[in-house]
Amino acid sequence: MSGNSFGTNFKITTWGESHGPAVGVVIDGCPPGIFIKESEIQKEVDRRKPARNSKISTTRREEDKVEILSGVFEGKTTGMPISLMVKNKDTRSQDYSAIKDLYRPGHADFTYDLKYGFRDYRGGGRASGRETIARVMAGALAKKILRLKNKTEIFGHTLQIGEIKAQKFNKKFIEQNKLRCADINAYKKMSKLIEKIRFTEGDSIGAIIEIIVKNPPKGLGDPIFDKLEADLAKAMMSIGAIKGVEIGAGFNCVNLRGSQNNDQMRIEKGKVKFLSNNAGGILGGISTGEDIIIRLAVKPVPSISKELKTVTVKGKNSIIKTLGRHDCCLAPRIIPVAEAMAALVLVDKSSQIV
Amino acid sequence: MSGNSFGTNFKITTWGESHGPAVGVVIDGCPPGIFIKESEIQKEVDRRKPARNSKISTTRREEDKVEILSGVFEGKTTGMPISLMVKNKDTRSQDYSAIKDLYRPGHADFTYDLKYGFRDYRGGGRASGRETIARVMAGALAKKILRLKNKTEIFGHTLQIGEIKAQKFNKKFIEQNKLRCADINAYKKMSKLIEKIRFTEGDSIGAIIEIIVKNPPKGLGDPIFDKLEADLAKAMMSIGAIKGVEIGAGFNCVNLRGSQNNDQMRIEKGKVKFLSNNAGGILGGISTGEDIIIRLAVKPVPSISKELKTVTVKGKNSIIKTLGRHDCCLAPRIIPVAEAMAALVLVDKSSQIV
Amino acid sequence: MSGNSFGTNFKITTWGESHGPAVGVVIDGCPPGIFIKESEIQKEVDRRKPARNSKISTTRREEDKVEILSGVFEGKTTGMPISLMVKNKDTRSQDYSAIKDLYRPGHADFTYDLKYGFRDYRGGGRASGRETIARVMAGALAKKILRLKNKTEIFGHTLQIGEIKAQKFNKKFIEQNKLRCADINAYKKMSKLIEKIRFTEGDSIGAIIEIIVKNPPKGLGDPIFDKLEADLAKAMMSIGAIKGVEIGAGFNCVNLRGSQNNDQMRIEKGKVKFLSNNAGGILGGISTGEDIIIRLAVKPVPSISKELKTVTVKGKNSIIKTLGRHDCCLAPRIIPVAEAMAALVLVDKSSQIV
Amino acid sequence: MSGNSFGTNFKITTWGESHGPAVGVVIDGCPPGIFIKESEIQKEVDRRKPARNSKISTTRREEDKVEILSGVFEGKTTGMPISLMVKNKDTRSQDYSAIKDLYRPGHADFTYDLKYGFRDYRGGGRASGRETIARVMAGALAKKILRLKNKTEIFGHTLQIGEIKAQKFNKKFIEQNKLRCADINAYKKMSKLIEKIRFTEGDSIGAIIEIIVKNPPKGLGDPIFDKLEADLAKAMMSIGAIKGVEIGAGFNCVNLRGSQNNDQMRIEKGKVKFLSNNAGGILGGISTGEDIIIRLAVKPVPSISKELKTVTVKGKNSIIKTLGRHDCCLAPRIIPVAEAMAALVLVDKSSQIV
Repeated sequence: MSGNSFGTNFKITTWGESHGPAVGVVIDGCPPGIFIKESEIQKEVDRRKPARNSKISTTRREEDKVEILSGVFEGKTTGMPISLMVKNKDTRSQDYSAIKDLYRPGHADFTYDLKYGFRDYRGGGRASGRETIARVMAGALAKKILRLKNKTEIFGHTLQIGEIKAQKFNKKFIEQNKLRCADINAYKKMSKLIEKIRFTEGDSIGAIIEIIVKNPPKGLGDPIFDKLEADLAKAMMSIGAIKGVEIGAGFNCVNLRGSQNNDQMRIEKGKVKFLSNNAGGILGGISTGEDIIIRLAVKPVPSISKELKTVTVKGKNSIIKTLGRHDCCLAPRIIPVAEAMAALVLVDKSSQIV
Repeated sequence: MSGNSFGTNFKITTWGESHGPAVGVVIDGCPPGIFIKESEIQKEVDRRKPARNSKISTTRREEDKVEILSGVFEGKTTGMPISLMVKNKDTRSQDYSAIKDLYRPGHADFTYDLKYGFRDYRGGGRASGRETIARVMAGALAKKILRLKNKTEIFGHTLQIGEIKAQKFNKKFIEQNKLRCADINAYKKMSKLIEKIRFTEGDSIGAIIEIIVKNPPKGLGDPIFDKLEADLAKAMMSIGAIKGVEIGAGFNCVNLRGSQNNDQMRIEKGKVKFLSNNAGGILGGISTGEDIIIRLAVKPVPSISKELKTVTVKGKNSIIKTLGRHDCCLAPRIIPVAEAMAALVLVDKSSQIV
Repeated sequence: MSGNSFGTNFKITTWGESHGPAVGVVIDGCPPGIFIKESEIQKEVDRRKPARNSKISTTRREEDKVEILSGVFEGKTTGMPISLMVKNKDTRSQDYSAIKDLYRPGHADFTYDLKYGFRDYRGGGRASGRETIARVMAGALAKKILRLKNKTEIFGHTLQIGEIKAQKFNKKFIEQNKLRCADINAYKKMSKLIEKIRFTEGDSIGAIIEIIVKNPPKGLGDPIFDKLEADLAKAMMSIGAIKGVEIGAGFNCVNLRGSQNNDQMRIEKGKVKFLSNNAGGILGGISTGEDIIIRLAVKPVPSISKELKTVTVKGKNSIIKTLGRHDCCLAPRIIPVAEAMAALVLVDKSSQIV
Repeated sequence: MSGNSFGTNFKITTWGESHGPAVGVVIDGCPPGIFIKESEIQKEVDRRKPARNSKISTTRREEDKVEILSGVFEGKTTGMPISLMVKNKDTRSQDYSAIKDLYRPGHADFTYDLKYGFRDYRGGGRASGRETIARVMAGALAKKILRLKNKTEIFGHTLQIGEIKAQKFNKKFIEQNKLRCADINAYKKMSKLIEKIRFTEGDSIGAIIEIIVKNPPKGLGDPIFDKLEADLAKAMMSIGAIKGVEIGAGFNCVNLRGSQNNDQMRIEKGKVKFLSNNAGGILGGISTGEDIIIRLAVKPVPSISKELKTVTVKGKNSIIKTLGRHDCCLAPRIIPVAEAMAALVLVDKSSQIV
């Protein structure tokens, strides 16, 4: 019935529907004395927006103006709950009236009706991707805290779209292209593929993205149920379109011997150095200080302009075809959300004693 | 600092180290009136044991006698906390004295020392696989509740070990072979591979396993952060050797168009029928009633008899070679643990209103 | 660091400072299908306001317009989080600049600085009584749910102010006088006393109030730590001015024998009837169905116009005298807040299985 | 359904029934490196036992041997969950067969049946006072942590039994008399009163006790819902026989003016000194560092040998008269339990950042 909070020490609670008055988040447990401005949060929210004039992403124009409603005084966090809000502007409800009585395949329509008896059918309601604005706002603050305390940097990039895989990794390139791909050649091929799928086929496509945490705090994570990888997996799988999570070697470990998968250790300049990072920066549920590596399976956008078989709310067979502005591949827009979730897990874990 | 509890409504708290007096679990929130016997729990605990006289699994003999210490009166649960315990018997501490001052690669030794300042080095202490006995005991009760209420059945099988993949699925065969593989031919090849890796190479190997939930309760899972797949992912990733989790189509969705990945719907005999199950039984974070499908990456057992580079507690380079009784591939023993975790998530989610 | 959430199943998270842009609450776990209007919530918020043109209560005029920002669709709750907000209007910051560097005795100034290093000194910031608007908004919804489901009614009245005790109980009279006293004669004496203390002495006075729950749901409360009386005690003690809580016979049970204090039972018309209610409607931590009776000690308003010794933020001795608009006795304004907290506990407890 | 856990960071989960095999507690979140011995815990458990050969307390002989089952290695806590157990010895089940079908007034029998459908009727089952052994065991560790970290000392004493009030306070005397009264003359009168009530009247009597925390850590407690006094109130009200809680001036504040109740401040030797302690050491929900003062109403023991009207499980009128060994006044035995609960709250609150 609930499920709208995340974290224990740095706890966020999100609210808001796609076509309601606003979406927002309350952050409870932010340490006092952190300087934070609306513009810093705005920057992250803007990264989540669809690329403008883009053939890749939705053409719907969203204006998402961040407002700080509490918890910040004279530019600094006070230790009190921080309430952040973005008002919904571009909410043409009429676009969605056609789907009021249909269950869109791949969407939450069917299960929300099953569980709650009815649903806010306007643009997906609470199940809309707009909900992730709240995560990104809170994540902006979490990222800043990690950066200040540990020089931790979190970023994501697109590894694969359809059959096109990134073959190279050039970090600087990531934020310079609309797909957040670190390989310029792969980006070009991915763009063409998406254009074809979107405009010729009226379809959408899945992707694999990777989130990397540089300089993570050491010693984060609790043995047994709250292992760091467990909390990261939950965080990532709570993002609507994510259907798979792997850490370090992940599913590839089926192909590895123990002698290959074990990250051996040496002392270098008085410090422990791992000779590989198949563990993805986490051993026994606790961060080692090595890079944390997470890969995510992103499902194809369910809203497509191809005809699909579906049923009505009243139990009749029907056909659905989603018109209007929709993304074709979610990878680039999900990256800031996944970064935010990683930051929220890490700052939550680092906000406890031992 | 904590992290030894799992679940909200049906909450378990586990305790115990490999070489301490006992391991156990307290289950808080079990509904009253469930008939449960020690023998029913014992049966699941025995499934987790190493196969006897096996070339595949550890030759260490474990006697794990389940004791019910509270919460059951006249054969029935009372609604009060249920305390279950297994005493540790076969704890030859001397086996482990050699590794007291070394960090075993792929183990929690390094991070426990990093986080807590020291560790119980006897057999992995709290990070030992013995901890999962507690999960399996609680899971036995969870499974029974699901079976009674919804005829829900949960089982797992081994999909792949090294390069050997199961090609067929014969459910009856799963519990008849030591690797819990549903394909008899694949089982034979897997056995040979394991024998070779274990005895010739002194090494270990990774695996992929699959957990299937038949007849899951409908409507389980909470939108946003506590989506059913998110809680399942956390549950699974909290098992020591698991490095990847996917639901339904999982990572394969990178190869799918939206039109392929969306599970279309028809009305059949007055009920909604999904024409495929790429969603793995979960839409919008809520169970549809279709089979829930989870696949897990199992890392190779880190304890191997090959020499590995490591460092000492005092910061010197060293070499480690783990002698003694160890599994080579964890797949068959992890399956009952993963089933237990799935059962715990489902019974927890079904123990709430709406 | 946190502490701004209350409840488990029907969980509220409040935010906002006295002189920030707004105060608000997010309710997570409200069942779907409850019809609720802003005006119903407004009504309860208005009950918490100072009585207009009153000699008893603060003369500061507050306009507290309730806005529903999420979770309600077509007039009904959807099961999604409900975000409620009241914008702050009448926030003359200059009134408070004098106290920026002083610790007001009886206020949170000293401890907030101690804990957080600095504080939002404008009107008490987060520690202001305005925070209770959020509780009252959430409580309005909780009250409605209880009324719909169980015909539960919750109300409070003033038992004692200074040495004046209510001697009679006439329920109808409670909401007709500014002190919410159920005894008209006592009310008159209380009014005179308050007028004297306020205007002649420039002082304030404590009170005892009582909260009564009629037709509470039976079987609410969990044995051991989450006993119903324990959760009620926490709820009440979390209100700023409350310094004591008692249930049923409360502190008077020191004067009772077991044979007097035990509520004996008879069968009447086929139902169990208790012959007294010293238990205050709760046995073994679980509601019996009898009236729940709670009494609360309300401390005198700390802001008074008498001179008090205090110290400055920089550690110098000083004198403080609070000018401006302040209540003299909090009893009437705390009653709606305490009712709200009682409703929140009961609806939270009734939102779980068994 | 649950409710057997207490605390967030230093979290305890208790289990066990009066006549089951054992009672116990799992402590999750204890910091590593604390030296603790079974004998230190035993000492506190023994303080909770009935005074031997006493006319005041129960004559039932209880042997409560503490066992540490996990979380302690080489004499020190490891940061892993600590499992503590006491086996039940003296459990003559036949004593209780007579009450199997009756609801004992003042006991949890009626509500447990109401909520769970049936109950473990042997000696109160889970609702028995034996459950508090688990609290005392965990509290012993909490007390040690507070003593080591802050030189915090927690003790309780009996203020009033029936009409007899302690008039003097001599701390040393508390643990030297069976009623834990700090006034030797009052103790003598209380003893006589109890003897009369117990043996002549076959009845029992209520009490008021006081818990004092010397040198509490400063800055503990979270604004709004998790105020220190709120968590203390919950902790205390969760003890079976407690029906009232007050902090500092408590209910007496009805008699105080603001100018009397406000604790004024001066600088002495460079430190802030409070000129009184009506706040009981807590301002704005946060500890000031002054003594924390809590007073508790203890109800008369419900089990008495006088005849009382009651009803049977099947809905018939009946009469009950409790024979056997029972306390007459719970004050002295509840004091160690209340001390334990205070320690648990404080160590939990001090186990978080900010």
